[in-house]
Order: sequence, then structure tokens, then C-alpha cells
Amino acid sequence: MKSRLIHDGQEKTYAVVFAEDDEPGSLLLEFAEEHKLVSTRISGIGGFKEVKLGYYDVASKDYAPVWIREQVEVASFIGNIAPFEGKPRFHIHAVLGKRDGAAIGGHFLEGKVRPTMELMLVESPKPLSRRNDAKSGLPLLDL
Amino acid sequence: MKSRLIHDGQEKTYAVVFAEDDEPGSLLLEFAEEHKLVSTRISGIGGFKEVKLGYYDVASKDYAPVWIREQVEVASFIGNIAPFEGKPRFHIHAVLGKRDGAAIGGHFLEGKVRPTMELMLVESPKPLSRRNDAKSGLPLLDL
Amino acid sequence: MKSRLIHDGQEKTYAVVFAEDDEPGSLLLEFAEEHKLVSTRISGIGGFKEVKLGYYDVASKDYAPVWIREQVEVASFIGNIAPFEGKPRFHIHAVLGKRDGAAIGGHFLEGKVRPTMELMLVESPKPLSRRNDAKSGLPLLDL
Repeated sequence: MKSRLIHDGQEKTYAVVFAEDDEPGSLLLEFAEEHKLVSTRISGIGGFKEVKLGYYDVASKDYAPVWIREQVEVASFIGNIAPFEGKPRFHIHAVLGKRDGAAIGGHFLEGKVRPTMELMLVESPKPLSRRNDAKSGLPLLDL
Repeated sequence: MKSRLIHDGQEKTYAVVFAEDDEPGSLLLEFAEEHKLVSTRISGIGGFKEVKLGYYDVASKDYAPVWIREQVEVASFIGNIAPFEGKPRFHIHAVLGKRDGAAIGGHFLEGKVRPTMELMLVESPKPLSRRNDAKSGLPLLDL
Repeated sequence: MKSRLIHDGQEKTYAVVFAEDDEPGSLLLEFAEEHKLVSTRISGIGGFKEVKLGYYDVASKDYAPVWIREQVEVASFIGNIAPFEGKPRFHIHAVLGKRDGAAIGGHFLEGKVRPTMELMLVESPKPLSRRNDAKSGLPLLDL
């Protein structure tokens, strides 16, 4: 993973590029820790050699896994980073495209990049935070 | 629905979070009215318990409804807000993910949130507006 | 294609709107050339009357074409513009929605707009560039 600060104002814009075999979830958390990101929106594209999405199951209040064990286009990768109990937490959803174009969408859990992921992160000056939501069992943005 | 202004510059960034059973379309219009939004880009993710998308039918010049009556991930929710005949109008497209990951995409008409929707809105200083386009029958951005 | 600079700061935001039969890929490159875009993120929605996506084939190191020869919603259109060998190059992925909502996702190669495409481009002050990546055979962002 490499990054570059491409705009340094009240809002900061980072280009973040992942290489083959990078796991974007854990690397984004390290990046967030290092750059003290507390109010970040994310948008980008790329490819995965394999990826695990989740589907929020209302009954179990947890994510049912959706594994994709083949090369896919990452047609979108959108979400945010905000702290939960003092540590960075991402909430990202992805849309994937298979060889025939068939699309898969869901909550991003983890993935292995191939050949690249090209993301733009914009950090805003006012902090956000998450709080555990009793009804859903999830750490949701709490404004 | 709750909101927070997280960057107050020439461009303004709002975090907007919806709760269970909120209808994001009508609430975004109220928000736009209250904050006088006339040039806004939207990006975010979340979940719906049910949602109505539209498919633009060239022959009828209108949206054919695509109803999804089950819990889905909102893998992307992208679009803009700009006035049409003096009142705020949104144009948003969504990609949804079902339990097995199968994705559905189209023009957002209305939805019922569960458990959350986390959007970022950026308002630019120069206004946009829509005008009715005779050929398509739609209120399109008119630059 | 029409455009308007809606925010002129350290980062510049352009609204870019395409009309029926426009080919967004070639027109974005002309726009990038004219406005000297070297560090741009893109996000938007619209519709195509036909469109060619690509799926990155690991074995051939090239994009296998996925043609969609019917009217589709463009549910998302996300990517970036950065120079490759001194000339603007876009890297954009799209998610499309068919009449029944079924979604198709992949690498955007070319398309014919109908009825509109409404994009927001944000140009950052620090330049990006691409370099040919030997392993994938692709001109990837090189930070």
C-alpha cells in the first residue's frame, strides 16, 4: 500500500493505492491510526483475487458471509472511517463484477487485491464516531 | 435522520445518517430545503428493508418500477441534489445486494431504511439546476 | 457534453453532464486535456443505450469485453483521471442496472449515453501519474 496527500486543506485528500495481495481492510485501519483519521469518506475501484462480503441478517444481528473465490473487478468501494471505542473502524460496501459482468454487492469484510485498488480518502475537520446500536447490534455512526 | 456539518468551507460537507424506517428520499428533500442545497453531490451506503428502484423506459419516457421487498445491503447510493422549478430535486442511483450477494441496480425512487444509511453530502458554492428535457421527459441537470 | 466549475479552490469541482449519444470516455479525455487535469476523482450516475465493460483476465493480462447492447441505468460510475506517459488516462468502473434490476459491473471501456450522465469531478492540487505495471500489464496509479 502506498499513499499520497494530494490536497492539504481544512479537508485533506489522500490517494491510497494497494498492490497485489494487500488486504485493504487491515491496511486502511493502520493508515487511519497513523494519520489519526476520525471523519473520512472513501471511494474507489480495483480488483480482488478473492473477497469476503457480508449480508446483514436481521434475525441474528450479524453478517452472513458471502465468499467470492475468483478474480473480480471491484466496480465500487464506498464507505467511511470513524472511531468506535477510541479505535478506527471502517464501514465500507463493495460491488464486484465477475467475468461475465454479473454483479455481487454487500458489506466489505476482507479481500486480497489483484492487480490494484485505487482509493480516494477525504478527511473532514469535525470528528465522527460510532456507538453500538442495541437494536441492530452494529457499531453505527452516531451524530 | 440526523446530520452534522463536518466541514464548513466554500464547499460544505454534511454527514447524514438515517435510522430504521426512515425514507431517505423525502428526508433528503426536507434537508435540502432547510439547508438551501442547490449544488450537492451525494455518496454513501446502508441497508433497506424494502426499496423501489426505477428503470428508465425509453418508449414510455418514464420509470418502470423495480420493487425489492426484502432486506438488502445498499452497496452504493450515489447522486446529486439540484433545484427543479425552484424546489430541491434529487437524482440518485443505488446498487443493492441480496442475501446471496446478487446485485440489483437502478434509479432510486423510495426506500425504508434498516438498520442505517450513512451518507456524505458535499454542497458546492455555484448553483446547479434542472430543466425538463423534452426528448427524455426527465428533469435533467442543465448546465 | 457540458461542464461547469462549481467550486474553484485548491481543489476544483466540475459538474459534467453528457447528452444522448455522447461517448463519455473520449469526451472525458478531451476535457482533461483542456483543463489540464492530472489528479481527478470522478463519481456519478446516468444511463447508456449501449456500453462495453471489461473484465481483467489474469492469464492474458488484458480486458475481456462485456458488451451490453440494451438500455441500462448507470447505477455508479467511479474512478480517476491521471496522466500516463504525459497524456490523460481515465480508470473508471461502472455498475449497470437492466430492466429487471439485474446488475452488471466492470471496468468501463466505452459507452453511448441515453438520456444523460451527471458526473462530479474533483481535481486535487498535487499531481498523480500512472506507470506501466509489468506484472499486470496495466497502467496503474504509481504513488
